[in-house]
Formats: sequence, C-alpha cells, structure tokens
Amino acid sequence: MKRRSFEDMNCSVAQALEIVGEWWTLLILRDAFVGIRRFDEFQERLGISRNVLTTRLEALVEHGVLQRVQYSEHPPRDEYRLTNKGRALWTVLHALREWGDEWVVGEDKASIVMLHDDHRSTTELHCSQCGDKVGIRDVRLVPGPGADETTTLPPRVLAQGQAGAPAQAT
Amino acid sequence: MKRRSFEDMNCSVAQALEIVGEWWTLLILRDAFVGIRRFDEFQERLGISRNVLTTRLEALVEHGVLQRVQYSEHPPRDEYRLTNKGRALWTVLHALREWGDEWVVGEDKASIVMLHDDHRSTTELHCSQCGDKVGIRDVRLVPGPGADETTTLPPRVLAQGQAGAPAQAT
Repeated sequence: MKRRSFEDMNCSVAQALEIVGEWWTLLILRDAFVGIRRFDEFQERLGISRNVLTTRLEALVEHGVLQRVQYSEHPPRDEYRLTNKGRALWTVLHALREWGDEWVVGEDKASIVMLHDDHRSTTELHCSQCGDKVGIRDVRLVPGPGADETTTLPPRVLAQGQAGAPAQAT
Repeated sequence: MKRRSFEDMNCSVAQALEIVGEWWTLLILRDAFVGIRRFDEFQERLGISRNVLTTRLEALVEHGVLQRVQYSEHPPRDEYRLTNKGRALWTVLHALREWGDEWVVGEDKASIVMLHDDHRSTTELHCSQCGDKVGIRDVRLVPGPGADETTTLPPRVLAQGQAGAPAQAT
C-alpha cells in the first residue's frame, strides 16, 4: 500500500480519508454501528488479524472516532464505543450502503434494508438551508474560507470563482 | 496492504469498498467530480505514481464507474468520464467532505464550500418515502431479501428481526 499522508492536502475529503480511508476501518465502523464493541467480536466478524485490528482500533481511538471504555475490572476488559465524531460517520457508511445496494448488489438482493417508522426507507439529500431536495446538478463547489493555492478545485474553477464541474462531468 | 477480497461478504458496504475502498480511488473520483478527465491532470494533481494511477483508473473502468473515451484520434488520446454508476458515488464523496469539514478541518477552515441556488449549503438526509428528516436514531436495519447466514447484522439482531443498534451504540 502506498502510504502517503493526505494531511498536507487542503481538502476535507483527503483529511477524512486520512482517518477512515484504510482498508478495514470502514468495516470496523460498519460493525460498530450495529452494536459491536468488543475486540474479539470485531475480530471474529471481520476475519482480520489481531495485529491489524489493534492498529486500526488504536488509530480510531487516537482520532477520537472511538473511545475505549473499561467494562470489567476483574479481569480488566475494554470495549470500543463510537464517539459523537464517530457517529457522525453514519452518513458515509449509509451512502456506501445505498450505492452498493443500487449499483453493485442490486436492491432486490440487499442483505440488509433500512426501516424508518416501520416502512422500508431509502434516503435523499435535502439542502439544510432551504429544504429543497438537492442532487449533484443542483449544487456547485466554490472556494471556502480556508482556500489557498493547494485547494483541490481546478485552477479554471478557482479563476471563475465557481465550479461548473457537475455539469461538465458528463 | 492486506488485500483480502470483500466480494464474499454478504454486505453492500463491503462490496462498495471492494470497488472504491482503495487508497487513491476516492481521491481520483473527487477529482473526476470537479471535471478532471485526463491521465496527466490526475497524475499532476494527486502526485501519484503513473503505475498506481493506471491500475486504479483501469479498475474503475472495469467496474463501470468511469468510462474511457477517445478525445483525439491523432495522436490517439483517451480521457476518463464518470458513468451514471460513478456519478451516483457523489453522495459518498459529499458525506466524506461534510464530515471532514465538520469534524476534522472545521467549517470555518473549509477550503471548499457548496452553493445551492447561490446560498451556502450543507445537507441533511430525508426519507424518500415519507419525506421526514432522518438520522441514525430514526432508523433501524433489518435483514433484507438477500440475507443469509453470512449477513453482517449480529446474530442477536437477526434473531430479533430488527436492529436496535443505533440506540445501543452509545
């Protein structure tokens, strides 16, 4: 694995991937979201080596995505719980699941479905300011307060001060 | 990199990661979404080796996420465009960006912001059936039509026929 750090990229996607972009990390989180908390249970479900699992869990604790909590004093035993920062990653896991259901597995073969108020549910994105449903063609990306010469919008977009990218990306 | 295939896992998250879970792949897609199409431009922006980039682009073409289109006959030159399957990954990139903005970089330091109808926008998830706003605590996961003994819901959830996981995952 080419293990270049993304921390220097002035981009929230890259910095998010710096934390959750490792193989296994998103699957560890997937399991955390269905209530898995203990090392042995993660290990058994993922079929992952104990060393790799230890490294991934420690990185997630270090980044504040999971917290280690002692659940037994004798013998001392810890479990891993999602923090608020970790729970906020639900949107990422959810988006991956919906994409996998629709484009890879097929919705009629989905092994897991989501219920909302007892009806089967999929989701759509709405603008939290105006409430309208939004898709890729309804929005554009522009330089934000932290933009600088390393910002990942292309120079032609930065020059225009707006991104026509979604329409271009035919 | 521990390169175990996720294809055997009966889980849409794992199968989505089989396609987009590689280091770099999501950053290649991030760039595709802002209109980058050509090999040299990806290579320059990502600082990635040509070999790695070639492998990743070919995998994305093979999986139908990108399509290779000839844009010049003399000399022959191809570019890479998002397919419908690829464009559908926007929700994943978008969720990563919003999480990175909020929890890693800080919204006041975001290098890129999203505009919708000329107002700065963030998004929220709504149920596409009833229209209500939904968060992790409003939904539960249950076995779907493709569920079997390898389904990644924990046995206690499968036995109940419902997932209390979001509430448990304190």
